[in-house]
Amino acid sequence: MTQHLQITKAQTLKEKPEVAGIPFGSYFTDHMFSMDYSAELGWHNAAIVPYAPFEISPSAQALHYGQTVFEGMKAYNVNGEVILFRPDENFKRLNRSLERMSMPKVDGDFALRALTELLKLEHDWVPDGEGQALYVRPIVFANEAYLGIRPAKSYKMLIVLSPVAGYYGAQLNPTSIFVEDTYVRAVRGGVGEAKFAGNYAASLTAQQKANDLGYEQVLWLDGVHQEYVEEVGSMNIFFVRNGELVTPELNGSILPGITRKSLITLAKELGYNVVEERIHIDDVEKGIKDGSITEVFGAGTAAVVSPVGIMNIHGTDYRINGNEIGEVTQKLYDQLTGIQTCKLEDKQGWVYQVTSTVK
Amino acid sequence: MTQHLQITKAQTLKEKPEVAGIPFGSYFTDHMFSMDYSAELGWHNAAIVPYAPFEISPSAQALHYGQTVFEGMKAYNVNGEVILFRPDENFKRLNRSLERMSMPKVDGDFALRALTELLKLEHDWVPDGEGQALYVRPIVFANEAYLGIRPAKSYKMLIVLSPVAGYYGAQLNPTSIFVEDTYVRAVRGGVGEAKFAGNYAASLTAQQKANDLGYEQVLWLDGVHQEYVEEVGSMNIFFVRNGELVTPELNGSILPGITRKSLITLAKELGYNVVEERIHIDDVEKGIKDGSITEVFGAGTAAVVSPVGIMNIHGTDYRINGNEIGEVTQKLYDQLTGIQTCKLEDKQGWVYQVTSTVK
Ligand SMILES: Cc1ncc(COP(=O)(O)O)c(C=O)c1O
Ligand SMILES: Cc1ncc(COP(=O)(O)O)c(C=O)c1O
Repeated sequence: MTQHLQITKAQTLKEKPEVAGIPFGSYFTDHMFSMDYSAELGWHNAAIVPYAPFEISPSAQALHYGQTVFEGMKAYNVNGEVILFRPDENFKRLNRSLERMSMPKVDGDFALRALTELLKLEHDWVPDGEGQALYVRPIVFANEAYLGIRPAKSYKMLIVLSPVAGYYGAQLNPTSIFVEDTYVRAVRGGVGEAKFAGNYAASLTAQQKANDLGYEQVLWLDGVHQEYVEEVGSMNIFFVRNGELVTPELNGSILPGITRKSLITLAKELGYNVVEERIHIDDVEKGIKDGSITEVFGAGTAAVVSPVGIMNIHGTDYRINGNEIGEVTQKLYDQLTGIQTCKLEDKQGWVYQVTSTVK
Repeated sequence: MTQHLQITKAQTLKEKPEVAGIPFGSYFTDHMFSMDYSAELGWHNAAIVPYAPFEISPSAQALHYGQTVFEGMKAYNVNGEVILFRPDENFKRLNRSLERMSMPKVDGDFALRALTELLKLEHDWVPDGEGQALYVRPIVFANEAYLGIRPAKSYKMLIVLSPVAGYYGAQLNPTSIFVEDTYVRAVRGGVGEAKFAGNYAASLTAQQKANDLGYEQVLWLDGVHQEYVEEVGSMNIFFVRNGELVTPELNGSILPGITRKSLITLAKELGYNVVEERIHIDDVEKGIKDGSITEVFGAGTAAVVSPVGIMNIHGTDYRINGNEIGEVTQKLYDQLTGIQTCKLEDKQGWVYQVTSTVK
């Protein structure tokens, strides 16, 4: 499918904010990508347009029945060049999410080309400070005005861009997590492995509870037994256990993170043994107690790598590595961000150069 | 809270459709109710306005993280008078759903008053044909333009109205259901008991699968064991077993239906023993085989009561009551619709007279 991409430029441009210290996802650039889907025309109306409110029907299906999926990636400014990290993986996952939610797939190559054009236009918005990036948010939602419960027949795709500092403020400050054993995020047979909007709404009460108890993030357990480790907030989780890297296996209810996948590759390259397995929370507790688990960290686009310093398991607070960043965590962080900022060699071809590959 | 309700009438009115045979939720009336919430002002801007598209931000949280809940009830035309059935229960459930999804509650009394005014204005839209009604759809969704994952700080509430024929076309035609044992709708600790938009998006793939296999509806099993009966599509389920009425107990993952609750009351009044318990799907299969289960039906606002004629359990099709409407099902249907149409005495005070109680 080769679609025409219409470009309409904004009449006036916004003032760019001081990125350091702005909350994640609160500023948006001057333009966005927009594309429509109808059963008759398929995806059409691909356009770059001014970032602005748009009209939606009071009966739009996304609002009533929640048919919405999204993606998240970052564009980095490397000495004035704009680069993306494995964007093809994001569009592949978008299509898997769309399929799971009975929504029409998009042409990933075309979407990446459109994003490339958008980023070229918004080039000046990609911040170059340490840890800063332009967050890229593709979203697809049902906009048919119809209240019957069945997959919608019309959809809109948008890509909006938001300059961000590090997600958790000061980068690589150890975070505290609360192991949630009452609320459940997802269960096998459900929609946990899709980047489905509703999964995030469904997580808010537990997130609030953790915050109220004084923890920053929720660690989710599996929905069946409420015993096996799944993921943390919007990150996958890793443990350093007897010098090996251990992470929950993809089981259908965990989001298959691209950071997770990349770290597994990098860790192997660095000579670590990597184990993907079902991890019982009691074994985590035992491992922290007996010293076999020496580091814990979360991994996701927003925070890249986020060391866990405090973990509350079954009501007991455990300090991990003296609430300091561990050696393996730091090494993996340096390696991944080194590639993302073109300071280290990109052996796998993960770096996508926006401003030089496409004219 | 006594809020002012601003009323702006539509300039031109739509032509009213022939209601018989129109698809559920495809036509909307001339006006809707709208109200805004902000952290500073609470709920404000309560207004009846022309039904029309409205502006939303490309970064509205409802679209990205799915914070949306809704309700559904019906306004009936009884000899020119408009009545609602237990609308207070719907607004109570709306508030429980809002709370579960970390959203601000609404004043149920005020919402009912606003709905009353809206229905008075749209009086002519309430159809009076057999089984017809004006479907009432309150919805609350997050509209803050912000991509951080936390409860939104601004919301919109709408009430839209849609004239409907019977949900399943010909009323009281037995339906066929497929017992789903791979996909899961909800799990304890999750959001199944909230009327949360995302629950419906999450059900679409299984619904499609059932349709592809030739069944009309999905019967969901519990998320933990995938063995206990939960509900059917957007209905609760009942069995007639040894002359008693049996239905799954409310367990946190089932939607607490108002039709379910009403039928339990009516059945007891009619002298039936009613059992709310955990029901194993194998026991249902056994009961159908040995003749102890004689009737099965779904119960919900859209279809009121919907007899189940065919049930596929573990790959085997079972015919229930010769694919005919059973005696108890018919009796409960007659009783409930009799009250809803003011043909039978309303002992419990369930009927709310829109056009006579409020001037
Ligand atoms: C629930 C959840 N888990 C894990 C991740 C990590 O995925 P990725 O590394 O692709 O950003 C995300 C997304 O950020 C997420 O939302
Ligand atoms: C999932 C689900 N179960 C059951 C019901 C029945 O609830 P009520 O009788 O209140 O309409 C509904 C709503 O119609 C529903 O959406």
